[in-house]
Amino acid sequence: SVNPDLASERQTASFCVEKLTALLDGGAEQTRIRRAVVEAIESDPVFSRENQYFQTQNERYEAAVKRAVHLRKKMDEMGWATNGPEYKYIYRALAGDVAFLLHSIFMRSISGLGSDKQVAKWIPLATQHKIIGSYAQTELGHGTYLQGLETTAVFDTATQEFILNTPKISAMKWWPGDMGRSATHTVAFAQLYIHGKCYGIHPFIVQIRSLQDHSLCPGITAGDIGPKMNFEHTDNGYLLLKNVRIPRENMLSKFCEVRPDGTYVRQGSQKINYLTMTTMRISLISDEVLTPMMKACTIAIRYSVVRRQSKLKPGEQEAKILDYQTQQEKLLPQLAAAYAFHFINIYLHEVFNRGYREIQRKNFDMLPELHALSSGFKAMITQHCTAAAEICLRACGGHGYSLLSGLPSLYTKILASCIYEGENTILLLQTARFLIKCFMAASAGQPVPPSVTYLAAVKHGKCPAKNKLDFLSPDIYTEAYQHVAVRLTSSTAAKLQDLIQSGVKKHDAWNQCTVQLVQAAKAHCHYIAVKNFAETVEKLETEAGIQKIMKHLCDLFALHGIFSNTGAFLHDGYTSAAQMDMVTASYLDLLAVIRKDAVPLVDAFDFTDKSLNSALGSYDGQVYQRLYEWAQKSPTNQMSPAYEKYLKPLLHNTLSKL
Amino acid sequence: SVNPDLASERQTASFCVEKLTALLDGGAEQTRIRRAVVEAIESDPVFSRENQYFQTQNERYEAAVKRAVHLRKKMDEMGWATNGPEYKYIYRALAGDVAFLLHSIFMRSISGLGSDKQVAKWIPLATQHKIIGSYAQTELGHGTYLQGLETTAVFDTATQEFILNTPKISAMKWWPGDMGRSATHTVAFAQLYIHGKCYGIHPFIVQIRSLQDHSLCPGITAGDIGPKMNFEHTDNGYLLLKNVRIPRENMLSKFCEVRPDGTYVRQGSQKINYLTMTTMRISLISDEVLTPMMKACTIAIRYSVVRRQSKLKPGEQEAKILDYQTQQEKLLPQLAAAYAFHFINIYLHEVFNRGYREIQRKNFDMLPELHALSSGFKAMITQHCTAAAEICLRACGGHGYSLLSGLPSLYTKILASCIYEGENTILLLQTARFLIKCFMAASAGQPVPPSVTYLAAVKHGKCPAKNKLDFLSPDIYTEAYQHVAVRLTSSTAAKLQDLIQSGVKKHDAWNQCTVQLVQAAKAHCHYIAVKNFAETVEKLETEAGIQKIMKHLCDLFALHGIFSNTGAFLHDGYTSAAQMDMVTASYLDLLAVIRKDAVPLVDAFDFTDKSLNSALGSYDGQVYQRLYEWAQKSPTNQMSPAYEKYLKPLLHNTLSKL
Repeated sequence: SVNPDLASERQTASFCVEKLTALLDGGAEQTRIRRAVVEAIESDPVFSRENQYFQTQNERYEAAVKRAVHLRKKMDEMGWATNGPEYKYIYRALAGDVAFLLHSIFMRSISGLGSDKQVAKWIPLATQHKIIGSYAQTELGHGTYLQGLETTAVFDTATQEFILNTPKISAMKWWPGDMGRSATHTVAFAQLYIHGKCYGIHPFIVQIRSLQDHSLCPGITAGDIGPKMNFEHTDNGYLLLKNVRIPRENMLSKFCEVRPDGTYVRQGSQKINYLTMTTMRISLISDEVLTPMMKACTIAIRYSVVRRQSKLKPGEQEAKILDYQTQQEKLLPQLAAAYAFHFINIYLHEVFNRGYREIQRKNFDMLPELHALSSGFKAMITQHCTAAAEICLRACGGHGYSLLSGLPSLYTKILASCIYEGENTILLLQTARFLIKCFMAASAGQPVPPSVTYLAAVKHGKCPAKNKLDFLSPDIYTEAYQHVAVRLTSSTAAKLQDLIQSGVKKHDAWNQCTVQLVQAAKAHCHYIAVKNFAETVEKLETEAGIQKIMKHLCDLFALHGIFSNTGAFLHDGYTSAAQMDMVTASYLDLLAVIRKDAVPLVDAFDFTDKSLNSALGSYDGQVYQRLYEWAQKSPTNQMSPAYEKYLKPLLHNTLSKL
Repeated sequence: SVNPDLASERQTASFCVEKLTALLDGGAEQTRIRRAVVEAIESDPVFSRENQYFQTQNERYEAAVKRAVHLRKKMDEMGWATNGPEYKYIYRALAGDVAFLLHSIFMRSISGLGSDKQVAKWIPLATQHKIIGSYAQTELGHGTYLQGLETTAVFDTATQEFILNTPKISAMKWWPGDMGRSATHTVAFAQLYIHGKCYGIHPFIVQIRSLQDHSLCPGITAGDIGPKMNFEHTDNGYLLLKNVRIPRENMLSKFCEVRPDGTYVRQGSQKINYLTMTTMRISLISDEVLTPMMKACTIAIRYSVVRRQSKLKPGEQEAKILDYQTQQEKLLPQLAAAYAFHFINIYLHEVFNRGYREIQRKNFDMLPELHALSSGFKAMITQHCTAAAEICLRACGGHGYSLLSGLPSLYTKILASCIYEGENTILLLQTARFLIKCFMAASAGQPVPPSVTYLAAVKHGKCPAKNKLDFLSPDIYTEAYQHVAVRLTSSTAAKLQDLIQSGVKKHDAWNQCTVQLVQAAKAHCHYIAVKNFAETVEKLETEAGIQKIMKHLCDLFALHGIFSNTGAFLHDGYTSAAQMDMVTASYLDLLAVIRKDAVPLVDAFDFTDKSLNSALGSYDGQVYQRLYEWAQKSPTNQMSPAYEKYLKPLLHNTLSKL
């Protein structure tokens, strides 16, 4: 039975939830396929995440391996192919709680960087899990700066082998998933040396564990790096290499080869490597960031209509906490952002697919723009969603802090995405470098890529809004965002030039501008996200009810951004103080409007109770009952040896004294 | 041996670290006492936290009970009295990782709310740990709103007993520490009913577990609420009461008594209860929030001078990451805030001690101000420090995400403080209510408490700064903060009045202003924090070197606040855009200045390696070595049953194929 406080929220939806779900999925047929996958996975007890919050790291790892092995059977049984329509829903349905994820990166890197012969040898073995692969790039001492990696691979012409070493402790491979306990092989990145000359970083296939008994191979030291904030199911590992010899054939050689005599041959473009990293950043957004963020919104919003606390009006029943303006102001902008990011994710995939087609035709012109977009949006979305998950957690008070709410693990999962696949600050600076370059080019009248043509059109006007309703016009706010992005880029470009002209060296000048460059890159991404949301809403005209609520969310996303960062809009007088008061008024009005549809808007994300795995967020809203039931299953409710050992000796003389 | 990259940072300190430590401790003698306590605790293996990051919740609990029991012996052995000078350092030295913390709240509430007879009966038993107490206030369905608690205590004149019940699932006590597994008794809060009439919330001593075998008493259901984001060592518990009968004498009756015939007698002032809550909020700041935040700064800053990544200047060695402006901009404002909050904490304690003395003389005039200050600063400091710890964690990249860095547990510990002892938004609204009241009074020419007299002096001037150096003048920036606090309070007061005058009901009008009221309360606290820091620095004149660096930190704290919230200062033109550019310039300049003393400034916090318990933050900066050593001790480096069960069947046919 559904909690009446939650049920009542669904009766007044201004739109059809099922239609919005289909829109989010990309069509009703996709919804059907997704639900079938979810049903198959969730009805299988091996995939149950029921006890997840009670398990140790060891238990989580074991369960994840079990699931990975079982998944192979399941896919055969269900007829799900790796390139089939179901595939993309499997990982979502498993909530990523499965082993061997790096195995697919291992395979992808062999397919992408290996010669035909290498692909023919290794891919079938990997596909059948006859070997288990990992991907060993990051070292203790180097993450972001790949050129600084210290692992070496020295070519020995005499034996036709590479000799691999991690010469210092900082060179030790550190973090690779599946490597701590599972992997038999890895693709290790090392500085290639031939006849004493360094040729830079190259990938090598290295066997690390015996296929007979899983013991470490000679010269290999490897293990698990221990506890982390999340990803307990993954055996992130370390790897020390001491004079490990591998045959010449184990250097992945699609683009570079070492001939038997030690001749180094490079073939093809290196640029394609960029695309791989770039694609990774885009592909992680959906599963690793948006889905958990949408889950966090679902949990917090459902809880906020079930939780009643204090009185809004004297003499009345205690109020649903979502009826407090401050609670709306915490949660509804996150909900709006979830939709905004869903749509920008679609946009990014479109741009990338176009780019990919061009690149296959050997046209690399789009690469800089793709790189800038993927870097900037990876940083912006992961950062925003991390903050959003923390807000959702805190908005649920004490119960949000319990692991049983599901919110802590959603938060810590998203948080990791700010760090991996490129640290966010570094990424934003890459976007900023692109912006500055394009701004200079545009100022000189040269052509620039489509996403930055706006930089050429520096206007010195003022915001034309005359009343608060004007700020519900996408033209008005999109223009304001554009203005800020241009101003921050142009003023930082000017500062950079001033510094250089005043004699500061180029790299010092750059460093002295980086705080502002980061701001410019964020403003650029925010502008594109707002513009894209507004354009998406406009195209939804066939579904009036849905278009209307999406328009509200778009307005909220835009106005929340202004409200939270008023200085950027006020700075040069583009927006006046009076206009800012209008923004605030419209923004606060919108909260009350969207609040009415808050539950239907999270229902549309269509998460099952099992996928949410939250005592606070279930569809029926029976929060307290579930918290109590779940807590009773905790291993901390078994008798503790602490009683016999410590408490009994303290307490045993008391009786006589009472 | 100290990592040379860290050692070099210490050679150039602009001040004497030992003198700054003494200043932070409140004198060299205090430093001596503190170090003696730390030494005694840390040299005792029972208190070791070495394996903390590898332990399960059950192991953490058991260890915490063991420590609590051992601590009693230790205190006897060392001659540390509960009211002695060492006492306040014990908890800090244990990093809070000890059981029976709620036991002292149990005792405090009996001492504060119990009659002399009750104190005489219960306090000796509790002091000797013949019983173990907890404090059962929060329920599944009610935290902040005490009046809404649903547990009932019905007086039965026939038997001279109270009959306690948690009539609904939402009435179940939930969260009390030490209650899940340890406590034999608790102070439970319940709605008192006599002859069918409700007299509101009262405290009752209830026995929950047998003193003979620790089994639950009749009518009691209790247990542990399960896993949380932190506090694994604490058995936060739940408690169901079903017709539990306790004698009339068990209602704490210093202020209220139920006579045998059911007559209800209230004596003394209820206001004193406010003071307890208010004091709690102030007393948690130091141990639960500031100390962990200072640890986070220490870890992140030491790591940032040991970690080298990428090149700042082409051709040179890789740069220390603290030499990047963006890294400075992440960490140094947090360091400045740590000092700012240390000094405001001292200020708050002074104000409270004064208030306490007044209250003992039955003068309750200061209570509203004390309540507003404690609410506002609890919210402001916990919120700021949570964000700071997250920034520190992320600033250490992947290694910050490892539990071995210590940063995840510092973050999750501080995060909890945003929620407990009053949820932050609610607290800020209490401060705001006080501000609005005082603003109205001040506008009408009535006297107001000292911390808000500034509200009476609304000035419509402009910021007089003419160049970036002017923004290093405390008068200039303190005035700017004051201006913003007044503007936000007065404009929200005006909005509130307008709404009410336009016919909106008072409570609706209040709700519609809450987002802005929260802003006003924050601005008020920020102003006071800046002003207090500036005044503190001025008084440090005897120690020139220390005064100079503290002045820099004060400037940074103030300018960072402006830089991060420019809109508030630009809004009404008090600060012009040109002046904001000066703020930015001065702010960025300061980062480079303070960066030189960053390590000495965290060294002055004087944390031992054991107290930091961080592979990244140790005094010697041997980061990579320690990460590797610690990881090897992880239980995840034991052989997993997953190999035999799942991996071997997959892999065992491979050999023939390779």
